[in-house]
Amino acid sequence: MTLHDIAEHLALELVDFSAVEITGINTLKDAVAGEISFLSDSKYEKDLESTQATAVILPSKKAYLLPRECIPLCSDEPYLMVAHLSKFFAKPIQSSALSPVIGENSTVYPTAHVENGAQIGSGCTLMSGVYIGTNVTIGDNVILYPNVVIYRDSIIGNNVMIHAGSVIGSDGFGYAHTKMGEHIKLYQNGNVIIEDDVEIGANTTIDCAVFGSTQIKQGSKIDNLIQIGHNCIVGEHCIMVSQSGLAGSTTLGRNVVMGGQSATAGHLSVAPFTTLAARSGVTKSITKGGVYSGFPLMEHKLWLKLQAKLAKLL
Amino acid sequence: MTLHDIAEHLALELVDFSAVEITGINTLKDAVAGEISFLSDSKYEKDLESTQATAVILPSKKAYLLPRECIPLCSDEPYLMVAHLSKFFAKPIQSSALSPVIGENSTVYPTAHVENGAQIGSGCTLMSGVYIGTNVTIGDNVILYPNVVIYRDSIIGNNVMIHAGSVIGSDGFGYAHTKMGEHIKLYQNGNVIIEDDVEIGANTTIDCAVFGSTQIKQGSKIDNLIQIGHNCIVGEHCIMVSQSGLAGSTTLGRNVVMGGQSATAGHLSVAPFTTLAARSGVTKSITKGGVYSGFPLMEHKLWLKLQAKLAKLL
Amino acid sequence: MTLHDIAEHLALELVDFSAVEITGINTLKDAVAGEISFLSDSKYEKDLESTQATAVILPSKKAYLLPRECIPLCSDEPYLMVAHLSKFFAKPIQSSALSPVIGENSTVYPTAHVENGAQIGSGCTLMSGVYIGTNVTIGDNVILYPNVVIYRDSIIGNNVMIHAGSVIGSDGFGYAHTKMGEHIKLYQNGNVIIEDDVEIGANTTIDCAVFGSTQIKQGSKIDNLIQIGHNCIVGEHCIMVSQSGLAGSTTLGRNVVMGGQSATAGHLSVAPFTTLAARSGVTKSITKGGVYSGFPLMEHKLWLKLQAKLAKLL
Repeated sequence: MTLHDIAEHLALELVDFSAVEITGINTLKDAVAGEISFLSDSKYEKDLESTQATAVILPSKKAYLLPRECIPLCSDEPYLMVAHLSKFFAKPIQSSALSPVIGENSTVYPTAHVENGAQIGSGCTLMSGVYIGTNVTIGDNVILYPNVVIYRDSIIGNNVMIHAGSVIGSDGFGYAHTKMGEHIKLYQNGNVIIEDDVEIGANTTIDCAVFGSTQIKQGSKIDNLIQIGHNCIVGEHCIMVSQSGLAGSTTLGRNVVMGGQSATAGHLSVAPFTTLAARSGVTKSITKGGVYSGFPLMEHKLWLKLQAKLAKLL
Repeated sequence: MTLHDIAEHLALELVDFSAVEITGINTLKDAVAGEISFLSDSKYEKDLESTQATAVILPSKKAYLLPRECIPLCSDEPYLMVAHLSKFFAKPIQSSALSPVIGENSTVYPTAHVENGAQIGSGCTLMSGVYIGTNVTIGDNVILYPNVVIYRDSIIGNNVMIHAGSVIGSDGFGYAHTKMGEHIKLYQNGNVIIEDDVEIGANTTIDCAVFGSTQIKQGSKIDNLIQIGHNCIVGEHCIMVSQSGLAGSTTLGRNVVMGGQSATAGHLSVAPFTTLAARSGVTKSITKGGVYSGFPLMEHKLWLKLQAKLAKLL
Repeated sequence: MTLHDIAEHLALELVDFSAVEITGINTLKDAVAGEISFLSDSKYEKDLESTQATAVILPSKKAYLLPRECIPLCSDEPYLMVAHLSKFFAKPIQSSALSPVIGENSTVYPTAHVENGAQIGSGCTLMSGVYIGTNVTIGDNVILYPNVVIYRDSIIGNNVMIHAGSVIGSDGFGYAHTKMGEHIKLYQNGNVIIEDDVEIGANTTIDCAVFGSTQIKQGSKIDNLIQIGHNCIVGEHCIMVSQSGLAGSTTLGRNVVMGGQSATAGHLSVAPFTTLAARSGVTKSITKGGVYSGFPLMEHKLWLKLQAKLAKLL
């Protein structure tokens, strides 16, 4: 679609350039020529001057920060505009004419469904009811237990085991909000990357990134009924115990342990070798490894002390 | 089955009327002629005098409150009696001879299963492993990702998107209890209604109503791994973040936001435009919109103050 | 494989006996002749003297406690050694040449998959997308809703109902850890036993035992999105409400009630007729029935008192 089409659809003020062809949406940092980007949070202002995006939706007063060759599309609600626009660039469920490629010595049960463009390595087992989306890549010696669902574009490494019913690559939970209180879906066009030797339990959900990749790094072990939000990065050799959760865009360093029912807010980072006790809730980044408990979070020793003090109130 | 059969089965005292035909069970308020109802909680006593039920199971001392034409079946354990009885009126998995109707431009993957009596609108995609129960109605432009399960009688609006592995309409968690501590299932005969423009994440569960409908109203967005109990009503444009939950018969007003891992007890109502912080736990109805935190729940400002006070204990 | 092979694989010191054939791994207590066992926790030292295992991996200084006929394999990291070894004895996904046996009046939907060696009783319904593993035994009048997955060797009693998407018998979350911080999977070779009259909700997960059985006893009712870890025992007529969880090796006595989002740590026991309020967290065994709340857990009355005291801080 053309910039002219977009501006007309969104009723935006277009300086000129209306026949410029736009191929997709991306962040200011990652956009390449042909893509449109947006500024919805002032902390990304620093990315304006170096963006490669062909056009950027942003408040008019910030337009001067753009590179000379970048086309501004001005709006007071850039995030909402991007959400509306994202539907036009949403990836279809199927988008490949290539028959799936299945490696040697791999078993695909008859009721598994593998979309076109998928590539499965050797020595894999895809059990009954498994779904593999278009353009998914799966390494060698991967076991997908029954009814595992891998959404399009996911990349799964070698020696990965995913237990029954888990869902990899479902849409991140991202919406812009209108002044009337409606929620407009930001169609998610990123993916999930799961590295080698990862094991994922049953009925766990890992969302795809809105842009870029949600990543589970080498050797991490994820239990049952866990939520991992869009754009999270789980470092090498992490342990996440059942019913724990990561909100979007949070990063765990290597060898982080999260106890049962623990959780983090979004956009945080947790230092390597941190242990979060069961039920702990992280609302600020953790810069130093250690053992933490409670909600609000504190050092585990302090939490024990606090509980002792509270017991004395009785 | 006849009232005579029922009384014999349950060893209840039947005044007369044993050949009266009973067609189903319902609440005092919603029962129509031909149905049997029950009084198990004194707060519903007010519904006795106006019930349209043909017969009511209730303690004998309350029988005088019934309309003259309503037949009392007397028991000290009416809820247990109804649970025993409910098995006889449990809806079968399949109950239609009509082939399913699939609208124009809709795609049903080969391993999806659509029961008789179901109606699918136009422009829908039912991916692999999807199950559609008998008499389910689905609107237009609905996407059901792989392995979504829709139990019988559910009604899904237009432009609804449900991510992989979610279950809509599973039985509510309702039991009567014997004096010996056994739990007798109350077979659930209600349904789920999901209105237009709702999006539901992966591996979420929404139970059907025991009688009537569990409802998710227009434009609400429900994340992954969320539990919505029987007979809940989620208002328009609500947001429920991952791993949150609603116990049975709770009502959210419009534009309520529930943070991650938050929850409510049952039989509550939450005022419109209320925000419940992550991890908050609601045990009483909220009559005034605002931002609330903690368990027990309090205004978010108070919760912050309390945490500051607790920190000073250390 | 021979002990010689094992010692070579793990670089362990083998006294002699290298041609002794080993058939499996088991606990000290349950191992029979031909099996290898291990000592990784001093609380099991008492089982050394009476073990029937043919060989035991243990620290060299404990070898003298073994029966004279038992062969020691000495290591300072016995648990890690067992984890490495367990892969060799991991049960294959399929291990029977016998066609499944389906009882009279049982319905198996076309997209359900029943592995060889499984036995299904009479009057059962296995709906679309159900998976039944090898050597699974299912009683009579069992309903498995769509996409339920039963892993190999599970035993399901009569009149059991399991709602859509639940997973029974997925691998317990068990790993040994190397000094470099890697996690080595302990392949799980136990099973799950579900007794008569149990109902299980939607998208719940019950892990198999590492050795022996995870058990859900007669008449218990388990709601949606619940996690039950490996080797747990849920007593008769228990109630577990949605999003609650049991960590591994915990035992609930009969008629325990667990409220929504409550949880226990592992290796605990909870006394019969205990009620755990919603959100409560159990970190020590409960020896006396009663009503408990909070995290840390306390008597519900005390918890109410504590909340009243805290409210006065404001």
